[in-house]
Amino acid sequence: MKAKGYHVAIVGATGAVGTQMLAILEQRQFPIKKLTLLSSARSAGQSLIFKGEEIIIQEASSDKFKGVDIALFSAGGSVSKKFAPDAVKHGAIVIDNTSAFRMEEGVPLVVPEVNESDLALHKGIIANPNCSTIQMVVALEPIRQALGLKKVVVSTYQAVSGAGINAITEMKEQSKAMLNGEEADAKILPVKGANRHYPIAFNAIPQIDDFSDNGFTFEEMKMMNETKKIMHMPNLKISATCVRLPVETGHSESVYIEVNESGKSAAEIQELLKEAPGIVLQDSPDEQLYPMPSSAAGKLEVFVGRIRKDLDEDNGFHMWIVSDNLLKGAAWNSVQIAESLVKLTLV
Amino acid sequence: MKAKGYHVAIVGATGAVGTQMLAILEQRQFPIKKLTLLSSARSAGQSLIFKGEEIIIQEASSDKFKGVDIALFSAGGSVSKKFAPDAVKHGAIVIDNTSAFRMEEGVPLVVPEVNESDLALHKGIIANPNCSTIQMVVALEPIRQALGLKKVVVSTYQAVSGAGINAITEMKEQSKAMLNGEEADAKILPVKGANRHYPIAFNAIPQIDDFSDNGFTFEEMKMMNETKKIMHMPNLKISATCVRLPVETGHSESVYIEVNESGKSAAEIQELLKEAPGIVLQDSPDEQLYPMPSSAAGKLEVFVGRIRKDLDEDNGFHMWIVSDNLLKGAAWNSVQIAESLVKLTLV
Repeated sequence: MKAKGYHVAIVGATGAVGTQMLAILEQRQFPIKKLTLLSSARSAGQSLIFKGEEIIIQEASSDKFKGVDIALFSAGGSVSKKFAPDAVKHGAIVIDNTSAFRMEEGVPLVVPEVNESDLALHKGIIANPNCSTIQMVVALEPIRQALGLKKVVVSTYQAVSGAGINAITEMKEQSKAMLNGEEADAKILPVKGANRHYPIAFNAIPQIDDFSDNGFTFEEMKMMNETKKIMHMPNLKISATCVRLPVETGHSESVYIEVNESGKSAAEIQELLKEAPGIVLQDSPDEQLYPMPSSAAGKLEVFVGRIRKDLDEDNGFHMWIVSDNLLKGAAWNSVQIAESLVKLTLV
Repeated sequence: MKAKGYHVAIVGATGAVGTQMLAILEQRQFPIKKLTLLSSARSAGQSLIFKGEEIIIQEASSDKFKGVDIALFSAGGSVSKKFAPDAVKHGAIVIDNTSAFRMEEGVPLVVPEVNESDLALHKGIIANPNCSTIQMVVALEPIRQALGLKKVVVSTYQAVSGAGINAITEMKEQSKAMLNGEEADAKILPVKGANRHYPIAFNAIPQIDDFSDNGFTFEEMKMMNETKKIMHMPNLKISATCVRLPVETGHSESVYIEVNESGKSAAEIQELLKEAPGIVLQDSPDEQLYPMPSSAAGKLEVFVGRIRKDLDEDNGFHMWIVSDNLLKGAAWNSVQIAESLVKLTLV
């Protein structure tokens, strides 16, 4: 660890995730000697407060990465593709929260609770997985380690903040309009720039990101492909259905799994998760205790509950996984990767 | 069919489902010679309009069923248990929309598109299945007929109207409060009379009905047990996770199935459903066409889309099923049963 700390840059500092990165770096007392905030030309010139100090946001450009040790990117895939290689050339380690490099060979895709050791293989860029993938693999890894994992079927219940600050505003405006008996206007969801937009207020939209030719959305493909890569299980049977809900923050997931070992109980799964890193077990039907977005928002952990043994499949189990999609799903996992790099003396 | 039509009674006429029953009987021009509206003492004396005529609501009691041919019950399980046997004694056929008799041997549990012929076995009481069960079996039956069915894993996205009119009001009040930055008050959901209540506005609650000892909720057990009974598949592998959403009307379901036949395509499933009774196929990713509660509310059909072949399991398929939980999930299925009774000369 450098004596005086690191020069950290945040690219996309004013976004839904970028502002959370700033807050978590401060909250975690990450060793920073200099903080550079970068954005598009539109937000440049604004300022943000870090540890009581005002920091002016600069327009991102290649030379801004000179001297940077760690660059946290969360400004969209095209920005990452444009500037991440430059940042690496200037000697920075990039932790990229977009999908730009996630499936590239040689780019570690890391959730520290699951595959921290993959960080050692980095060549400059480390990818932060998709929000809905992260919280799921945190919960699955302790089970895989103990009982093996054959199959995963996940249905998601995803919050609008995953689509950015403007999507939150749109949901609130739509909600107000509909409660007043007015028509709701839709311009952003399900996908910015798509041909059709649907109101999310008081609705559920079974589309997140665009469709690929096989009928799955890119969001669903991300969950499936990223899980295989992070868990080093290319042959895992996994399928996802991703759905957007009128929830501001906090992704929920209904997950069905089949493990390798037979004869296990729900209590044994609960024991595994109770001890596991990054997880809070909230699983007491008698007390109506289970995870919900309303109780998970603002927290760093992954919350797991509703653990049940399938009644017809001896090695089948069900669970309900909730986490803050902007924190463990994005900003916190990125900062956690930075902390791991420091701990493993990789930066 | 009786020359002048039937004497029909609705028990629970002022409820979320009862008012829809009234509307559908009128819309379908069901042959009615007399309509009796019954309720608790609290609503008795109020009136409702049927075919332009004001009908005074009477307090339910045993003797009110004298001369009734068809009694539609939707006033809660305890009311059905109290009065349905009396109605049968007086010669009525009861179509019961509560869970009171659904799993009783000798009581047909009927979705006309699936098992209409079971109606012939009735001994006075016919049960209307749970809302989330009905829409699923309508979509599964054509697939079972053509390809066989081995396994079902369903995660639901259920609307608050399933919990009654007061739950809708509560969701709207909570939404208004939260949009104004105020605390949301919760007194009804997830279960009326439960120890704990949680706001449903901008949230997702993984509890519908109380918990059974095996960790599944009664709602989940209903979906599992009722599906087996309706489809005459006691050995079907089926599991459910039921979740309440801030949606007013329209239940959605993410359903994973495994069929018996191998080598089938998503296109073949689409063809099966396109021709099937009661189903509207909405499945065109290129046009962003898929079912949503916002487009299904107020319609009688079951809408199916997002049909995909599993990428890792040759006989596995995914689909997204949406229907109006008050209509096909309750009032319309009940009236449809009455229409079947007339068609089959069972009344």
